[in-house]
Amino acid sequence: MIVVLKHNVSQARKEQLIAWLENLGLRIHVSDGEYQTVLGLIGDTSRVDMDLVASLEIVDSVKRVSEPFKCCNRKFHPDDMVVEIGSVKVGGGHFAMIAGPCSVESEEQIVTVAKAVKASGANLLRGGAFKPRTSPYDFAGLKATGLELLKIARQETGLPIVTELMNIMDIDLFEDVDVIQVGARNMQNFDLLRELGKLDKPVLLKRGLANTLKELLMSAEYIMASGNERVMLCERGIRTFSDYTRNTLDLSAVPMLHELTHLPVIVDPSHATGIAKLVPPMALAGAAAGADGLIIEVHNDPMHALCDGAQSLRPEDFDALAKKVFAVREICRA
Amino acid sequence: MIVVLKHNVSQARKEQLIAWLENLGLRIHVSDGEYQTVLGLIGDTSRVDMDLVASLEIVDSVKRVSEPFKCCNRKFHPDDMVVEIGSVKVGGGHFAMIAGPCSVESEEQIVTVAKAVKASGANLLRGGAFKPRTSPYDFAGLKATGLELLKIARQETGLPIVTELMNIMDIDLFEDVDVIQVGARNMQNFDLLRELGKLDKPVLLKRGLANTLKELLMSAEYIMASGNERVMLCERGIRTFSDYTRNTLDLSAVPMLHELTHLPVIVDPSHATGIAKLVPPMALAGAAAGADGLIIEVHNDPMHALCDGAQSLRPEDFDALAKKVFAVREICRA
Amino acid sequence: MIVVLKHNVSQARKEQLIAWLENLGLRIHVSDGEYQTVLGLIGDTSRVDMDLVASLEIVDSVKRVSEPFKCCNRKFHPDDMVVEIGSVKVGGGHFAMIAGPCSVESEEQIVTVAKAVKASGANLLRGGAFKPRTSPYDFAGLKATGLELLKIARQETGLPIVTELMNIMDIDLFEDVDVIQVGARNMQNFDLLRELGKLDKPVLLKRGLANTLKELLMSAEYIMASGNERVMLCERGIRTFSDYTRNTLDLSAVPMLHELTHLPVIVDPSHATGIAKLVPPMALAGAAAGADGLIIEVHNDPMHALCDGAQSLRPEDFDALAKKVFAVREICRA
Amino acid sequence: MIVVLKHNVSQARKEQLIAWLENLGLRIHVSDGEYQTVLGLIGDTSRVDMDLVASLEIVDSVKRVSEPFKCCNRKFHPDDMVVEIGSVKVGGGHFAMIAGPCSVESEEQIVTVAKAVKASGANLLRGGAFKPRTSPYDFAGLKATGLELLKIARQETGLPIVTELMNIMDIDLFEDVDVIQVGARNMQNFDLLRELGKLDKPVLLKRGLANTLKELLMSAEYIMASGNERVMLCERGIRTFSDYTRNTLDLSAVPMLHELTHLPVIVDPSHATGIAKLVPPMALAGAAAGADGLIIEVHNDPMHALCDGAQSLRPEDFDALAKKVFAVREICRA
Repeated sequence: MIVVLKHNVSQARKEQLIAWLENLGLRIHVSDGEYQTVLGLIGDTSRVDMDLVASLEIVDSVKRVSEPFKCCNRKFHPDDMVVEIGSVKVGGGHFAMIAGPCSVESEEQIVTVAKAVKASGANLLRGGAFKPRTSPYDFAGLKATGLELLKIARQETGLPIVTELMNIMDIDLFEDVDVIQVGARNMQNFDLLRELGKLDKPVLLKRGLANTLKELLMSAEYIMASGNERVMLCERGIRTFSDYTRNTLDLSAVPMLHELTHLPVIVDPSHATGIAKLVPPMALAGAAAGADGLIIEVHNDPMHALCDGAQSLRPEDFDALAKKVFAVREICRA
Repeated sequence: MIVVLKHNVSQARKEQLIAWLENLGLRIHVSDGEYQTVLGLIGDTSRVDMDLVASLEIVDSVKRVSEPFKCCNRKFHPDDMVVEIGSVKVGGGHFAMIAGPCSVESEEQIVTVAKAVKASGANLLRGGAFKPRTSPYDFAGLKATGLELLKIARQETGLPIVTELMNIMDIDLFEDVDVIQVGARNMQNFDLLRELGKLDKPVLLKRGLANTLKELLMSAEYIMASGNERVMLCERGIRTFSDYTRNTLDLSAVPMLHELTHLPVIVDPSHATGIAKLVPPMALAGAAAGADGLIIEVHNDPMHALCDGAQSLRPEDFDALAKKVFAVREICRA
Repeated sequence: MIVVLKHNVSQARKEQLIAWLENLGLRIHVSDGEYQTVLGLIGDTSRVDMDLVASLEIVDSVKRVSEPFKCCNRKFHPDDMVVEIGSVKVGGGHFAMIAGPCSVESEEQIVTVAKAVKASGANLLRGGAFKPRTSPYDFAGLKATGLELLKIARQETGLPIVTELMNIMDIDLFEDVDVIQVGARNMQNFDLLRELGKLDKPVLLKRGLANTLKELLMSAEYIMASGNERVMLCERGIRTFSDYTRNTLDLSAVPMLHELTHLPVIVDPSHATGIAKLVPPMALAGAAAGADGLIIEVHNDPMHALCDGAQSLRPEDFDALAKKVFAVREICRA
Repeated sequence: MIVVLKHNVSQARKEQLIAWLENLGLRIHVSDGEYQTVLGLIGDTSRVDMDLVASLEIVDSVKRVSEPFKCCNRKFHPDDMVVEIGSVKVGGGHFAMIAGPCSVESEEQIVTVAKAVKASGANLLRGGAFKPRTSPYDFAGLKATGLELLKIARQETGLPIVTELMNIMDIDLFEDVDVIQVGARNMQNFDLLRELGKLDKPVLLKRGLANTLKELLMSAEYIMASGNERVMLCERGIRTFSDYTRNTLDLSAVPMLHELTHLPVIVDPSHATGIAKLVPPMALAGAAAGADGLIIEVHNDPMHALCDGAQSLRPEDFDALAKKVFAVREICRA
């Protein structure tokens, strides 16, 4: 960590700061320039509160040289993490093809979709039981009933299930769920992250709409520092000025995260774009960018399901897409 | 609500959609153009799921003509809401000067600051007991103890207290708190909002870092639709590409929110900028823009509190600022 | 175009507005609701100044139903445009592999790189002669000399050349250039666009850092409305809050632009990321997303060229990448 | 400048880099840590191409410690710059109240508005003769005729005139203009900036929609390094995800720019919001934030001028506003 002091700081105050930093267990290297004094902090700076140092009256700016995350830092874990979900592996060359409906609606619906996506090569089943909605007047999911229906679909197909937990108070209901998803709006719900860190269960952590990669990694760090190492990251679009698409899928996050961390990175082209027609090209692009998996919305009956999501594919579209995804992956990994 | 259909939609599918919309209790006005058919939806469209309609295969785009929020809509509540907190009033010409330390640290600290800010004209005391932190390794507040210290400061000064609740499970601890603050990261924690809607207690709802004014109002709607009308909104900076400042304080939100809603609007210049030197000009700008209140961080002893927040003012700075704020308000309201 | 009037507008003012709109050659459909009056404007609204209408005191909001662009609108030109550059075709199934150094530095450099990229499958040569630089103290290119060196490389390889024009006053120097590139910062240099519209020469129009797809298309419209139909669009990253990468490559722009326009869409992974290691995955992702071409920076001698661009690939990296790009394209277009 | 090297860089390559940097006239301080080597560059780093260094294979990241701008850096020019425009002074305690219509339309219009705003306390007259428009089909100003009408209004009122130059080729027409405005879209039109640097005439430089403060200062540096020191900066709103307002007025830029530079800072509340009703609160907020001036659109006859800008005030609104602005300024500067 580099601390740049303001011009004309008194020697006494400079020494006071250095003493305080040394008390944190750091060695300090002082470099006096014509206009500025620069302190180099050597040692474990991951526990130094950067905002706090930046706030000191004599400090001009603070710059990190090393990252504040440890558990999820590839520097300390050079090999890809492989997350195991039953017999399914994700990361380190293993691909997660997660598919299913936006919301669980009925046993018939979820079982039908589960069978279809499995036949097309999906190895994990998604489906929303607890749904975050911007408006209090919109449908918020079948809740506990939805979880039960997901388990039936798992029994019928053998596909492990992935579903979103919104509220710590519901955590007991998720005991028999295979992967707990943390939604974008909860990426910095730190109490929730800490609780998930106490479980022995994989977590799919979605990037928040306005969160940097560093913040995403710090949220993974919350889970991992509490004891649960099985975290998968998910890029699902960020908020920009963009018109036309709902969010902007930030695919460069995929190779960049692979540089920074050993955790698997999943791409969600459905929520990122919000437009079914854009899902196949963005899914293919995600695979080409090196994603360790995709999470895609598929619905069963577009003719009758007038309420189906704008971003969901029909099973036959998913089938055609999955074939291409696997082929693209082969080429790009070569 | 205006629904634009795609070119060349069959008559049968068009009629199917119209029938479905009529089932929702709406009247539909059809306008056929050369390239497009436009449906005008007349009636209460606040409960129509706009994303869902936009997702239909035959729909090109959906545009709202009326807002999806009702409880907080000024169209239905033309007079300013006045929120009462004990004898303190906020909104409708009444100004909230909320001040106090970033974190509650000790009885001496919080009582000292409380007395100082009261003497300078503050009418509400802020102080963090539960602190959201990006890193799991940073200080997260004194929690329950912090709440007790706030109550002591209230007893000593008579100032009602404002403090942040992060987790529904802690809600009982907040029974004797005067105003519950919802932090920016929790603005769309919908379960939390619903629980706050069941209380008889004012809520200070902070705008999320990447949330639009409409989303802020929808979150207020969650609280109000659950029965609690006493909501104050708070602009605290949004995330942009900007360098130098932590966030970008969006002051035009103040007069714009006054157009859209009758709820009071508070401005937080401390968190928005993250830099103490920018707090006074931004506080004055907030008052000039018509804010119904300010929430400002003040610490007690800058000489010793090496750990104090980068964005906190000293009591004497706050005193000078408060005088100017009240004077600016007089001019701008004339 | 839909014009929503404010509540309680007098009949006289409403009629005044309608008369004014009818004078523009439009038919007006009036729909009176309980809270709002909505005017539907039928006819050619592409020449109606939307900001102007929105600014009227009695108008609440204006929403476009049809796009304000015509020349580049796929609705009126359903078939893909194929841009011909000598014998090279771009669009409609033809792929542009544009490669070359960031800046033209010497004859040896540009000829060496040109031969290398041609051997790897590039069909167009890029190279900067006029370079926009944020700082007045940075190297701004070889200018006219750079253009001459590009022509030598074209003669040696047969590759048509693509290079940026920054200033109308230099336009005569570009007479013998094959494709003129308009940089992101000039996307809304409207006088420049109008001049390019008078040429008989393809234009590669880069999207500005903070420009919407609609604005990009309106800029293409400037060129096309002036008489030059041969416009290729280029996505090169937008400015967001993102850390780590220089810009955020918005790949969903590719399929979305293909919906909106018949013009070819090129992707520039080099400038978007600013990091050489991210170029191959983003190039592959661009191809998978359906781009009609890529523009990639390649330098010749990384060992000696200490000054080479952070985002440039070595020829051997480009060669490996090009093979994969062509293979991915085959799969995704199937 | 701090250069962080990658882990495991060979000694030979490290020395090669250091030698290259020393050749640029810098002294290098090497600090070897367990995981990283950090180079401190001491000397004049304003001419070091930061992107270039960051692009080197052995470099992990580069961080600036001192700013790359010199001419406009307050560190080297501690006193406020006072720009003189005839007898009008701007900066260092002198306030610019710039007002006038969006577009110059007729002699009667511009003279009437000029007289009105002068009577209300404006000391500079604005008016657009060359208008940048997103659509090629929108009105682009009266051009040379508009400039002549501005001069007539100047003669009638004595107010110096401020108007936008879009194109270097028109520069001769602006010889008798008092202040040349560079629009947001031209903030990085570097050739234009260089030409303006050769004039002996104040320049009002508007911040681009997606430009950082550093980039704004680098553009001012272009003008100043070419010889023209009389630059005024203008904040006019940035592009964000925000709904409702056209742009987001970034008022914290005002005090932040005052920290970084000695140049005057003007605020444009009209273009930032695009909504007349928001102009007065944002103008007052700008004055409260410490701006050295305001630039406000005023039109003459709202009843008949159906085409007037959405963001323009009527003269009587401007009169009431100006009184408050001057009063707010008195308080905030005290």
